[in-house]
Amino acid sequence: MYDLNDVNGTVLFEEGDHKFIWLGADPNAKQGVIQTNQFLIIDKGRGILLDPGGIHLFSRVVAAASRYISIEKIDTIFFSHQDPDVSSGIALWLGVTKAKIYVSKLWLRFLPHFGIVDSTRVLGIADTGGSLPFSSGGSLQFIPAHFLHSVGQFNTYDDRAKILFTGDIGASVFPEGSEYLYVDDFSAHVKYIDEFHKRYMASNAAIRKWVSMVEKHKTNILAPQHGALYRGPAVQSFYAWMSQLRCGIDLIDEIYGR
Amino acid sequence: MYDLNDVNGTVLFEEGDHKFIWLGADPNAKQGVIQTNQFLIIDKGRGILLDPGGIHLFSRVVAAASRYISIEKIDTIFFSHQDPDVSSGIALWLGVTKAKIYVSKLWLRFLPHFGIVDSTRVLGIADTGGSLPFSSGGSLQFIPAHFLHSVGQFNTYDDRAKILFTGDIGASVFPEGSEYLYVDDFSAHVKYIDEFHKRYMASNAAIRKWVSMVEKHKTNILAPQHGALYRGPAVQSFYAWMSQLRCGIDLIDEIYGR
Repeated sequence: MYDLNDVNGTVLFEEGDHKFIWLGADPNAKQGVIQTNQFLIIDKGRGILLDPGGIHLFSRVVAAASRYISIEKIDTIFFSHQDPDVSSGIALWLGVTKAKIYVSKLWLRFLPHFGIVDSTRVLGIADTGGSLPFSSGGSLQFIPAHFLHSVGQFNTYDDRAKILFTGDIGASVFPEGSEYLYVDDFSAHVKYIDEFHKRYMASNAAIRKWVSMVEKHKTNILAPQHGALYRGPAVQSFYAWMSQLRCGIDLIDEIYGR
Repeated sequence: MYDLNDVNGTVLFEEGDHKFIWLGADPNAKQGVIQTNQFLIIDKGRGILLDPGGIHLFSRVVAAASRYISIEKIDTIFFSHQDPDVSSGIALWLGVTKAKIYVSKLWLRFLPHFGIVDSTRVLGIADTGGSLPFSSGGSLQFIPAHFLHSVGQFNTYDDRAKILFTGDIGASVFPEGSEYLYVDDFSAHVKYIDEFHKRYMASNAAIRKWVSMVEKHKTNILAPQHGALYRGPAVQSFYAWMSQLRCGIDLIDEIYGR
């Protein structure tokens, strides 16, 4: 179980005018609906939301973010990919903020199907990535994570907080009541990630490409969109486990069933 | 340009009490928003909708389908995958019909993020596929099409109409005003499909697996979710072109940019 305090979120990093915040667990989460993490970066009084989530979480995430910043000061929203649990609240978020939205350019033409969307406020990230400078110095880097699972997915690396936000990579699926916030014992954690990664990650070749990019960055916390956060030695343990994983197209005969 | 008549849809197959209908083009389609096809199968007075689409098309698709059947007679809805242009209207469709929804089991836990959804009406298709019998005889088969692009995607094969609905596979992206309904000259059509398939399809290995399954079925029309329908010899030409395509993870160094 999450600690009761976790419902309201936790500041994962704070130094001067820069904070990286986990926005807490949904106390009304239902069995059968995947749990999602939302993150808020505050830099010099401006907010950046990472994967604010779908329609059904909108009011909870507005309330959670409001404990740390006025919603109108959120000027940037990042979507790791196009899935409903990431981005289906897009029209609502465009309504309550003046934020620009950053997402893989692969999804620009698809997102308007969520509802009426002002496309001048949705900016496409090129396949090779990019970065946004922080006012306080340093930057939020967009790191390619394509095919893991989405064909157009990005991670973000906050080079002040040294936190890598990984979208679906590293996601854990806990049985009800077994949740915890931090992975401290990686080998005991594998049972919660094995099945998901084998089926949703597209291939070992894509994993190795991704590991070769992210391992260049010193990472204190690896933060997925679902489930527990990896910290300390668990980050390297996760890279090592992923690097040897056969998944997706590597298992295609088994998945297609003949 | 589509023919003016195409705005209202076209019956692609009709025999006795079985019809397969393309539900027409959106006359208000905007540049920068991907065009989508919706299909309606009517069998002995009951309706099956294939990829009815996102929130922003809902009223148009209700109107188009109503020209052929009363909406309350639609008892089955199929989603090829989880993207917003396919499935973000889920809560609206559950509201106006009593239909059951069929989608890859991979997305069952994700779809509730589109809004409040009665999960007892959403049925997961196992990775290896399945089928729904038609009252009139024959069946609608669910054929695996995983990783093309979605990691959990299905095609449907209507073995009465001999129409294969392929989701994102075969999607064409036309410049405004260049649209046509049928691919008759495949080699002239390649320029509208090449870029999309190279980037969104996950690998040649997945394509070849898919081709080995669909080529077993006599197919008069191959109907994607976007753009033109393949008929006659264009179906085999498309399979041959796909079988040699290097795409996605085959081009991973290029896509990741280093």
